[in-house]
Amino acid sequence: ASMVTAEDFMFKGLNIAGDTSKMLGSSVTAANVMQIPGLNTLGISMARIDFAPNGGLNPPHTHPRATEILVVIEGTLSVGFITTDNRLFSKTLEKGDVFVFPKGLVHFQLNVGRYNAVAIAALSSQLPGTQQVAMSLFGASPPVDASLLAKAFKIDASLVKRLQREFLG
Amino acid sequence: ASMVTAEDFMFKGLNIAGDTSKMLGSSVTAANVMQIPGLNTLGISMARIDFAPNGGLNPPHTHPRATEILVVIEGTLSVGFITTDNRLFSKTLEKGDVFVFPKGLVHFQLNVGRYNAVAIAALSSQLPGTQQVAMSLFGASPPVDASLLAKAFKIDASLVKRLQREFLG
Amino acid sequence: ASMVTAEDFMFKGLNIAGDTSKMLGSSVTAANVMQIPGLNTLGISMARIDFAPNGGLNPPHTHPRATEILVVIEGTLSVGFITTDNRLFSKTLEKGDVFVFPKGLVHFQLNVGRYNAVAIAALSSQLPGTQQVAMSLFGASPPVDASLLAKAFKIDASLVKRLQREFLG
Amino acid sequence: ASMVTAEDFMFKGLNIAGDTSKMLGSSVTAANVMQIPGLNTLGISMARIDFAPNGGLNPPHTHPRATEILVVIEGTLSVGFITTDNRLFSKTLEKGDVFVFPKGLVHFQLNVGRYNAVAIAALSSQLPGTQQVAMSLFGASPPVDASLLAKAFKIDASLVKRLQREFLG
Amino acid sequence: ASMVTAEDFMFKGLNIAGDTSKMLGSSVTAANVMQIPGLNTLGISMARIDFAPNGGLNPPHTHPRATEILVVIEGTLSVGFITTDNRLFSKTLEKGDVFVFPKGLVHFQLNVGRYNAVAIAALSSQLPGTQQVAMSLFGASPPVDASLLAKAFKIDASLVKRLQREFLG
Amino acid sequence: ASMVTAEDFMFKGLNIAGDTSKMLGSSVTAANVMQIPGLNTLGISMARIDFAPNGGLNPPHTHPRATEILVVIEGTLSVGFITTDNRLFSKTLEKGDVFVFPKGLVHFQLNVGRYNAVAIAALSSQLPGTQQVAMSLFGASPPVDASLLAKAFKIDASLVKRLQREFLG
Repeated sequence: ASMVTAEDFMFKGLNIAGDTSKMLGSSVTAANVMQIPGLNTLGISMARIDFAPNGGLNPPHTHPRATEILVVIEGTLSVGFITTDNRLFSKTLEKGDVFVFPKGLVHFQLNVGRYNAVAIAALSSQLPGTQQVAMSLFGASPPVDASLLAKAFKIDASLVKRLQREFLG
Repeated sequence: ASMVTAEDFMFKGLNIAGDTSKMLGSSVTAANVMQIPGLNTLGISMARIDFAPNGGLNPPHTHPRATEILVVIEGTLSVGFITTDNRLFSKTLEKGDVFVFPKGLVHFQLNVGRYNAVAIAALSSQLPGTQQVAMSLFGASPPVDASLLAKAFKIDASLVKRLQREFLG
Repeated sequence: ASMVTAEDFMFKGLNIAGDTSKMLGSSVTAANVMQIPGLNTLGISMARIDFAPNGGLNPPHTHPRATEILVVIEGTLSVGFITTDNRLFSKTLEKGDVFVFPKGLVHFQLNVGRYNAVAIAALSSQLPGTQQVAMSLFGASPPVDASLLAKAFKIDASLVKRLQREFLG
Repeated sequence: ASMVTAEDFMFKGLNIAGDTSKMLGSSVTAANVMQIPGLNTLGISMARIDFAPNGGLNPPHTHPRATEILVVIEGTLSVGFITTDNRLFSKTLEKGDVFVFPKGLVHFQLNVGRYNAVAIAALSSQLPGTQQVAMSLFGASPPVDASLLAKAFKIDASLVKRLQREFLG
Repeated sequence: ASMVTAEDFMFKGLNIAGDTSKMLGSSVTAANVMQIPGLNTLGISMARIDFAPNGGLNPPHTHPRATEILVVIEGTLSVGFITTDNRLFSKTLEKGDVFVFPKGLVHFQLNVGRYNAVAIAALSSQLPGTQQVAMSLFGASPPVDASLLAKAFKIDASLVKRLQREFLG
Repeated sequence: ASMVTAEDFMFKGLNIAGDTSKMLGSSVTAANVMQIPGLNTLGISMARIDFAPNGGLNPPHTHPRATEILVVIEGTLSVGFITTDNRLFSKTLEKGDVFVFPKGLVHFQLNVGRYNAVAIAALSSQLPGTQQVAMSLFGASPPVDASLLAKAFKIDASLVKRLQREFLG
């Protein structure tokens, strides 16, 4: 404990835009216990999310151990989560709007504006984890059985295999 | 409290096979706080899962508020969960085998045997909730934007719309 | 974490009947964090309980850190727990019946049928602990003061000493 | 909330000795959420325990929802708890000695001095509950099956029935 | 539950600067469960903090039920918290810097720049509470005994009384 | 675990009065996990507080991680806590009176009698921590900026500097 300093409670760089040129046009910069050791046992963390103009997407995902609360810093986002009885709760958010994604539920954020969008998110865990739904299913290693995915998604196994090739890169 | 009786801690019927003729060939019978009021505040519940022969599937889903531990009572199941770094942890389970699905992670169970399969699952919440991944995305009401899903799953919007029609029935 | 595999989330053998020829005619096979390292921090575990015909008894005991939910797989059990105001909540359970034993309360299960009985129990702790009431009091090492037990149970100290010899074997 | 006052956080009377002339020569005066509404959600409570001279006994019991920490204010107590592997951890406590009884484990306190003894206990729950082991088993209402208790305690059913009459008064 | 809508998870207005012309030159706009009912049971909330140029101060305070994590959106803040062994952990934060104030510890934020400063804070409670240290001591109603405060702060009782008049307005 | 003994659950010495001749006329003797290793993970601890006659003061402080419940063993105390909306909840306590100080709120105890006073306190954490408000602000190392404190307390910076010299000794 005597070795702990103020540095252990600080993180620099949430002013820097993430690279949205890859993936689906979004980028998450995390500030959790992996970056800030002082968060250990404290049950909270933060992240910056950048979105490319015209459709930058943080695709459907869950945080297995955390609720997320998000505020739009810049731009316009269409956001939503889906409940366990398959209701979509969604809103279009402008700068300054806040939205809550309850623990463990599938949710997404999409830039529906013509400019960059930026959000600050906070999560109720020091290490919330993120599970990308499509990537986890079609890009798992080793792969999930193709016929299982075909049945679950009501698509052909051949399409599953094509998707698996795409997601596994 | 003086009105509470032993009935409030009991549930009958986990010996009865669920109807696996619909859906994807599986059926879940829950024994949680909705059925057993005495479970209130106690942080645990149970369920029976039935699987049709030759591919009865409990499709990829999450429990937003619970870890699941499952034991096979009858038959042979291929089960797995996917971690937040997209690793598939899977096993083929025979009668008496136990497997754990950590809180919030996408997981599935598939009957790979030629006969009915039955499992008993316990969950670390009195009301764990279940989110079916494919159903929540393609069968949400109102629907999730088709172009968003197309981008997330790397498929055509026309296919998304076909899937949405199928999942919404 | 990179060394973790699917093996860490699995346990084999809950299909195998425990030996009910000793003790009081019951046997508990545990599947907790001692057997399944992947249960660490996840707050749940499982067990199989076997009962000999005609009176196999899982004697009055507590789980200091867990609620138990139990389903009968085979046979007929008389089960019950006692509340902090000394009310007995009990039921006779047949195959498929589920019963809840709230955290920390004294409870028991007795085979009242003519055949073997089997139950699957789940507990709301990765390491619930079990305290056998009679054994803990009369079989403790070093022994609990005999006159203390005599007073608590309203019996002679000589009987306490005889019981201590029997429980300590 | 605007109706809350300092009275809701106060309790008077832990200076008054409980009546130790009945029962087994001990008396517990509780200061928990039933007496102090301000304790709601705060996870702690207190109690005074009085012991008659020469053997006043707080007999073996558990607190299903709390750890207890106790300090001797006056007198000499022999105290102990039993672990889940049937080890007795015990000490003789003098004035000013503190002892811990971990959550859910069977424990007791006995006045081994020639004068009154007094202890202040704190418990890690706003409503810890107390289960008297002997009373809960032999004094339950309705009674626990006598043959079950006979088997569990390795005594005759006739003795069980005599004890049940004594405990039920 | 069927009455719940997306509105219950949303809050508008964190883009609007608070009025920093009063108090000590800072203003907090909360987005907690009082504004967002959907946060109930979810253990997180958010706030915007505005600071007037040249010394706008969010004075020493605690959150009795929450850790705070803060990111600077605009300007330059000198921030710090004091540990239970009276060590000051402080940093000067620029735009994009993140700092953590552990649960319950006294902390402050001061605008040391020549322009407005803005921060977004997240807190690990749906209703974290805020206790202003100076205000709670010198502005309490009814007042804290002046001689007690004089002794605690090593100042004259006459100064305490002057401060109490100022804080009570 | 096999090395654990009854010693790990015991602490001696809460009968011994602390030295109230220094500081502000009070002294706290702790019995937490630093003194009693068996308290680890158990979420409770204890302390004895001594007060000099005629004004012995346990000055305004918080416990960042614990609620406190206190009983007066000897003497007369004026105690109070301040809520997050700056209401003082206070009482004069005599021997045997119990009072609760909710988690994280500023509180104090003052001996208003002519003799020594003694209290036993219990706290809802194995390591509750104590933050002395005046000491943490004026005696922090390195010092908190004097102009910041001057502004927060509505006093001159020169007085702040004098106080800092006094508190830092």
